[in-house]
Amino acid sequence: MSPLAQNIPDESMILMAESRIKPFINHTPVLTSATIDRLLDARVFFKCENFQKVGAFKARGASNAILSLEESEIKNGVATHSSGNHAQALAWAASLVHAKAHIVMPSNASRIKVEAVKDYGGLITFCEPTLASREETLKSVIKKTGALEIHPYNNYSVIAGQATAAKELITEINDLDVILAPVGGGGLLSGTSLSAFYFSPLTRVIAVEPENANDAWESFNRKKFIPSVNPITIADGLKTSLGDLTFPIMMEHVHHIVTVSEEAIVRAMRFLWERMKILVEPSAAVPFAALLENKTDARKMRVGIILSGGNVDLDSLPW
Amino acid sequence: MSPLAQNIPDESMILMAESRIKPFINHTPVLTSATIDRLLDARVFFKCENFQKVGAFKARGASNAILSLEESEIKNGVATHSSGNHAQALAWAASLVHAKAHIVMPSNASRIKVEAVKDYGGLITFCEPTLASREETLKSVIKKTGALEIHPYNNYSVIAGQATAAKELITEINDLDVILAPVGGGGLLSGTSLSAFYFSPLTRVIAVEPENANDAWESFNRKKFIPSVNPITIADGLKTSLGDLTFPIMMEHVHHIVTVSEEAIVRAMRFLWERMKILVEPSAAVPFAALLENKTDARKMRVGIILSGGNVDLDSLPW
Repeated sequence: MSPLAQNIPDESMILMAESRIKPFINHTPVLTSATIDRLLDARVFFKCENFQKVGAFKARGASNAILSLEESEIKNGVATHSSGNHAQALAWAASLVHAKAHIVMPSNASRIKVEAVKDYGGLITFCEPTLASREETLKSVIKKTGALEIHPYNNYSVIAGQATAAKELITEINDLDVILAPVGGGGLLSGTSLSAFYFSPLTRVIAVEPENANDAWESFNRKKFIPSVNPITIADGLKTSLGDLTFPIMMEHVHHIVTVSEEAIVRAMRFLWERMKILVEPSAAVPFAALLENKTDARKMRVGIILSGGNVDLDSLPW
Repeated sequence: MSPLAQNIPDESMILMAESRIKPFINHTPVLTSATIDRLLDARVFFKCENFQKVGAFKARGASNAILSLEESEIKNGVATHSSGNHAQALAWAASLVHAKAHIVMPSNASRIKVEAVKDYGGLITFCEPTLASREETLKSVIKKTGALEIHPYNNYSVIAGQATAAKELITEINDLDVILAPVGGGGLLSGTSLSAFYFSPLTRVIAVEPENANDAWESFNRKKFIPSVNPITIADGLKTSLGDLTFPIMMEHVHHIVTVSEEAIVRAMRFLWERMKILVEPSAAVPFAALLENKTDARKMRVGIILSGGNVDLDSLPW
C-alpha cells in the first residue's frame, strides 16, 4: 500500500486529521477587531494561524501526513525541498515521531529560516536557487537516504491537515457567509473549501491571489491548469503553481477568486500589525487586502479569514 | 462628595470595576509559547493587554474612572495631559459616555498618537514639550472648560481599573507563583499587586523597571519616594515618577523589584515579536527582559506577565 492517501479527503478524513494532530498543534485563537468591523461594515473573524506551531498553518498538513504513516514507512525519514514554512513544518513534524527530516534548501534561503529548520533538528542539503536544482537535489537525497517525500501541498494527507484550520474556525464561529483564503499551491485553499463544503455548506469560499502571481486566477477562469512562471510578488508563499490534486478541488469547491495589488498587500499587512497588534507575513495579508481594496463585497456579512502565517524578517520590512 | 474614590481599592471595588468595564473592554487572551517555556524551564502566561482597546491596559483604568462618575460630574468633560496611551484611553473612554475629553499633548507628540486621539473624538490642546508647560496648559484648559482631571495613575478608580487585568489573569490561570509587571507611575503595578493580594495571596508580585529609569527601584529599596528625573530609556511608558497613591500600595503589596538593561528590553521585545508573533511596545517587553536577563529566578515556576501594550511606530523600530 502506498503510504500516501489516495482519495480526496472526505468528512471523516478531516475529522480524523483533526483528532490526530490535536495533541501537537496549537488550537489557534479567532481574533476580531471593532475598528475593522466598523471600517468594513462587516463582522470579520481572523483565524490566527500565525500563532500556529512553526508560525504557519503548514504545521497542520505536515503533522497529519507524518502521523498518518506507519513507523516502517518513515524509518528512513522524510524529505522535501522548500525555502519557506513547509521546511520548518516538516522538520518540526518529523521531530514529533523522532524521524529524520531531510530538507533541501536553496543556498539563498534566509538565515532565519535555515536556523529554524536546524533548531527543529532538520538535516539540510543546500542547492542552487533554481527549481531544477531543488528537484534534482531532492531526488538525489531521496535516492541516497530512502526518505519518503512529503510534498508541501500536492498530497491528500497534507490537504486534510490544512483543512483543520477552517474546520476549527467553522466550529467556533457559526453562520459564516464567506471564508477567504490565500492561494499559492492550493493546499490551504483546497482544504478550506472541503471543510466549508462538509461542515458549513452555506458558506462561500473565495480564494485571493496576488495580481502579480495570478496563475490560480487564470486557471480558475479558463478552467484549465496554467502554471506559475517566475512571478514577482512580496507574498513569497504564493508564488508556486497549483498541483494536480489541488486544482480539481479548487474547481469543484471554490466559489470565486479575486486578485490584489502589491500595494494593497503591504497596506493590509501594515494595517493588521498596527490595529490588531499581530505579526502576519505578506502572504497572510492577501485575503484582507481583498477587503481593503473592495475586491469582494463583505458588507453586512460574517467573514472568516485564515491568517496563514507570521514568519517575517524583522530586518527587512516593506515600509 | 468628591468624584474620585477616596480609599485604596478593596476587593469589592475591583470586582465592581471588573463588571462595570466588562461590556466595553476586550477580555484579552492569555498566550503561551512552548519555545519560551523550554528556554526558561518555566510555564509563562502572557496576559495580552496589547490586544486591549486603544492597544494598552490604560483603557481599563480610564473607563473605570469615567464610568464611576455621575453624569453631572463630567458634564464639562474630562481632561489630562499625556503624550502616550492614557491620552488615547481617556479620549476613548469619554466617547463611551459622550463626554468631551480635553487632552493636552506636547507639540512633539508622535503623529500616530495625535491621530488616534482625534479618531476617538479627543479635543487636543498642544503645549511645549516640558512637564511645566503640560501642567500649566492643563490647568488653563480645566479653568476654561470646567473639565474634571483624570490622572493617568494617581487615582484610585484608575488603579482599580488597571487591577482588573491581573484579576482576569488570576481567574483564568490558577496557582501562579509570581506575576511580573512593569512600573512607571505605578498604576498597573499597584493594581496588579492588589489583585494578587485579594484573589491569589500566595502569588508574589515582582515589579520590573528599566535600569535607566530606576526611580521606583530606588524608592522601594530606600523606602521613601524618589522622583524620576528626565530618564532616558526606550521604554517611554515607564519614565514617570510614582504617585503619592501608588507608592504606598507598592511598598505594602509588591514583593520585589528588579531592573533591566536597555539592550535586554530591545532583545525581549524582538523575541516576543519573532516567537509569539505579537506586537508589544518596549515598556511591555520589560518584564520578559527580566526573565531573559535572569534577573529573577523563574525556573520550575508558573509565571504571569502583564504585556502592557502594543502601540509602536512601525517606521522607527529599534533594530
